[in-house]
Amino acid sequence: MLKPEAANRLRAIVGAGDYRDDIEALVAHSYDGTPMLQSLPDAVIYPESTEEVSKIMAVLAEYGIPLVSRGSGSNLSGGTVPSQGGVVMVMHRMNRILEVDLENLTATVQPGIITAEFIAHVESLGLFYPPDPSSMRISTIGGNIAECSGGLRGLKYGTTKDYVIGLEAVLAGGEVIRTGGKLMKDVAGYDLTKLLVGSEGTLAVITEATLKLIPPPKTKKTMLAMYKDLYGAARTVSRIIESRIIPATLEFLDNPTIRVVDDFAKLGLPLDMEAILLIEQDGDPEAVERDMERIREVCELEQAERVEVAATREEAEKLLTARRSAFTALARLRPTTILEDATVPRSKIADMVLRINEIARKYNVQIATFGHAGDGNLHPTATTDARDHEEIERVEQAFAEIFEAAIELGGTITGEHGVGMVKAPYLEWKTGPAGIALMKGIKQAFDPKGLLNPGKMFAKESRKRVVLQHGQ
Amino acid sequence: MLKPEAANRLRAIVGAGDYRDDIEALVAHSYDGTPMLQSLPDAVIYPESTEEVSKIMAVLAEYGIPLVSRGSGSNLSGGTVPSQGGVVMVMHRMNRILEVDLENLTATVQPGIITAEFIAHVESLGLFYPPDPSSMRISTIGGNIAECSGGLRGLKYGTTKDYVIGLEAVLAGGEVIRTGGKLMKDVAGYDLTKLLVGSEGTLAVITEATLKLIPPPKTKKTMLAMYKDLYGAARTVSRIIESRIIPATLEFLDNPTIRVVDDFAKLGLPLDMEAILLIEQDGDPEAVERDMERIREVCELEQAERVEVAATREEAEKLLTARRSAFTALARLRPTTILEDATVPRSKIADMVLRINEIARKYNVQIATFGHAGDGNLHPTATTDARDHEEIERVEQAFAEIFEAAIELGGTITGEHGVGMVKAPYLEWKTGPAGIALMKGIKQAFDPKGLLNPGKMFAKESRKRVVLQHGQ
Repeated sequence: MLKPEAANRLRAIVGAGDYRDDIEALVAHSYDGTPMLQSLPDAVIYPESTEEVSKIMAVLAEYGIPLVSRGSGSNLSGGTVPSQGGVVMVMHRMNRILEVDLENLTATVQPGIITAEFIAHVESLGLFYPPDPSSMRISTIGGNIAECSGGLRGLKYGTTKDYVIGLEAVLAGGEVIRTGGKLMKDVAGYDLTKLLVGSEGTLAVITEATLKLIPPPKTKKTMLAMYKDLYGAARTVSRIIESRIIPATLEFLDNPTIRVVDDFAKLGLPLDMEAILLIEQDGDPEAVERDMERIREVCELEQAERVEVAATREEAEKLLTARRSAFTALARLRPTTILEDATVPRSKIADMVLRINEIARKYNVQIATFGHAGDGNLHPTATTDARDHEEIERVEQAFAEIFEAAIELGGTITGEHGVGMVKAPYLEWKTGPAGIALMKGIKQAFDPKGLLNPGKMFAKESRKRVVLQHGQ
Repeated sequence: MLKPEAANRLRAIVGAGDYRDDIEALVAHSYDGTPMLQSLPDAVIYPESTEEVSKIMAVLAEYGIPLVSRGSGSNLSGGTVPSQGGVVMVMHRMNRILEVDLENLTATVQPGIITAEFIAHVESLGLFYPPDPSSMRISTIGGNIAECSGGLRGLKYGTTKDYVIGLEAVLAGGEVIRTGGKLMKDVAGYDLTKLLVGSEGTLAVITEATLKLIPPPKTKKTMLAMYKDLYGAARTVSRIIESRIIPATLEFLDNPTIRVVDDFAKLGLPLDMEAILLIEQDGDPEAVERDMERIREVCELEQAERVEVAATREEAEKLLTARRSAFTALARLRPTTILEDATVPRSKIADMVLRINEIARKYNVQIATFGHAGDGNLHPTATTDARDHEEIERVEQAFAEIFEAAIELGGTITGEHGVGMVKAPYLEWKTGPAGIALMKGIKQAFDPKGLLNPGKMFAKESRKRVVLQHGQ
C-alpha cells in the first residue's frame, strides 16, 4: 500500500475514478501476457495527458515509488508485471491520433491507441504503417514502441524502430523531453529516439510518438508452400533471399503448429506436411508477379510437395489470420503456453529448427515452432502445465539450451519480444559483461533512483552459461 | 608532447613507422574538412587490428591522453579536429572487407574502407549498399558510421543508421564489445548499435561493422525539372510525396548553385532558372516509368519551365556527379566555404529557402543553397573569406539565425553532418537542457574520464537562443 499522503496526491492529479487501489484493479494489473508471473501493484492510475503523467512521476520520484507503465499488457516477456509493487500506469485513456500529416507522411499519436485501429485509420487515408505484431488487435502503439515490436511484415519493412522518428517522453523526475520530429534525418546528438524504442519502460514513459508512414504497395499476393522435408522449407528461406528477392512476409510453421492452426481456423491444411511456408510479396503488379513466379521455382527446386497461391484477397487474409492465431491455437492444447523468441541469422534457420527439435526430445517436452523465418526470428512454443513443477523445470532447461544454441549460431535471445523479466538472466550471454555495464550506465543516466519498471532487463543474477558441445 | 614513456609504449604497440610525432604528421592531422578549425595533436597512430586499438586505448586511459579517431577527415563539423591535443588514431590501415555474406545479405568490414570502394565491391556482387554521402570517394565507412552519413539516396533508402546491424567497438579503457550481429531483429537490451552510429567518436572506437545489403533496383531514371519560380520547385517536392511517390533521389539546387555547378561541370544548364530539381526513381521498369510520368505531371503543374529525362545512364551519371560536386564547385568562388546542414520537415522546404534568402540579405552574405530536398535536408553554403573577420562574424550570425529558423519550422540543426565542434553551441536549442543532460549521462557511462573526442558534441557554453520574430 502506498502512503495515504502519496495516494491522495496521485488521486488529486487524475481524479478519484482514475486512481484505483481496489483489489479488482490490482489483480487485473498484476500480470500480463506472460505465463507464470504475477505480482500485485499498490495502485493503478490512468492519466489523460502528458501533464498528468509528468505530475504523477514527480510525486512517485518524491516518495520513491516504482512505476510500471503499460498499454494492453500483451507482451510475452513479463515486461509489465509490477514485480516490485508500486504504481501501474495504464495509458489507455491517452489514445488519440493527434494528426496524420499528408504532406510529410507522418502520424502523431498518443501511446494508448490500439495498433490495429491506428493501422486501419492510416489505411483509410491511403497510407501504410507496416509494423504488424500478431498482437495488433489488442496491443497499443506505446507498447509496440516500448518493446520494439516486429511482425509479419518485418522482413521487407523493418520493425517499430524503423518507423518512430520523434517522441515526447516523461523522465523519472517528471521532466518532459522531445526527441526527433517530423524529420527523415536528424543527427543532433545521440539518438535518444531509437534508444527509447525497445527500452521497455525502463528509461522514460512515452506520451506521444511521431511515426513515419509510407505509400502502400499497389498489390499483394499470398502463397503457401508445403514440405514433407523440414529442411527443404528452411533452405527455401535462404534461397529466396539469395535470389535477391525480399518478400513482404516469409513465415514458417512446423507440423505441430500446422495441426493446431488448422484445427483452430478450419483451413483444410494438409496435416502430413512437416513444414509450411506462408509467403507474401507486395508492390507493383508486374514486380509481384515476377517475384512470385521466381519464388515458386525456388520452392519447387527445394522439393516443396505443393505450392498454392491464394486465389482471392479473402483467402489470403484467412491464411494470414490463421498464422497470427498460432499462439492462440497452441494455447488451447494445454494449460500453459510459453512462446519464445530466439533469433538467428536467416541462413541458420534450418540449423536452429534442428537444434530446437533435438533439445525438445532431450528434455521430453512439447515444442512447436513457427515464426518469421525470413528474419531468422523463430517462436519455439512449449505447451505445458504450470502446475507440473517437474515438467516446467524441464521446459526451462530446454529454453536455456535453445537460447544458448541461438547465440552459438550468431543469433540473439530475443528478436522482438524484449528482455523483461523472462530473458533478463540471459541478457549477458548476448551482450557480454561490458555490454551490460554500459546498459546499466544508460539506465543510471535516465533513472538514477531505479524507479522505472524495476527488475526488468537487468537480472540480479545472470544464468551461468554452460557452453554446449554440438550434438549434445 | 606525450610523456616519453607513454610514447614509447604506443610505439611498441604499432611499430615505429606507425606512430608519428614529426611535425608533418601532426600538421596533416590538425584539421579536417571544416574551415577555420585547426589544432595540433601530440601524436598520430595507425593501428592495424582491433587488438592494437584495444592496447592503444588502455595506454591512453592509463595516462589520461585524449583520443580522436578518424577516417579521412572529410566531415564538415570539426568532428575530427584534435582540439585538446592528444593522439589522433587514423583507421586507414584497417580497411578490409572481411566478408560479404550472400545468404544473409550482409557485409562485414573494417572501418577504414573507402565508402565508394565498398559500394563498388558490393555492386560487383549484384548487391546494393544505399548510403552515398557526397564525400564517398574519400570518406570511410567508419567515418560514415561515426557521423551517421546520409547522401543522395537517403529519401527512399534511409541513412547509414538504417544499414548498420552489428558493431565491434573498443571502449575507452580498451575493452572490446560486440553489438547486434547478422540479425534483422535484435531487442536484447538497449540498442547500442544505433546509439554508436552517429556518436561521432565520443563513445567508442568502431573497429568492425556488419552492414545490411539489399537487392539492387532493376533500373533507374533521372530527370531534371527547371523552375523560374523557386517556390514552385519547393512545392513540387511536397506534391511528389503527397502523390504517394518516394523517389530515390530528390535534390534541389538554387540559382547560385546552378551557376557554379554548370561552370565546374560544363553541363549546359540554363543559367536563368531560379531552381532545379534533380529527381531519380529506381525499381522495376514499369513502376519507374509510371512514377516518372506522374512526377513529370507534378512538375508541370507547379510551373516547371523545362522537364528533361536523361537519355542515357552516362548522361544521368554526369548530372549526379555534378550535384555531388556542388561543394567543390562553390569552394572555387572564394577562399572559404562554409557548408551547413539545417533540416526541416519536407513540407517546410519552401519556407526554409525563403528564410535563408532573407537572412543572407539581412547580413549581406553570399549563401547558395542546395541539398536533399526530399529529406528536408538543405545545405545553405556561404562563400566567404576567413581573413575578413568582420564578414565571418556576419556569416556566423546568419547561420545562427538559419539554425533558429530551422528549429522554429520543426527542424533540426544538423541532418547528416553531425554536431562536432561547429554545432555544439546550438545542440541545446534542439534537445533542450534535459536532452543534453541525458546525453552527457550516456557519455559518462561510456567514457567516464572524457578522453574520447573531447570538446565535441557538448559545448562549454550554449549559445543563447534569441527567439526571432517572423519577418525580422
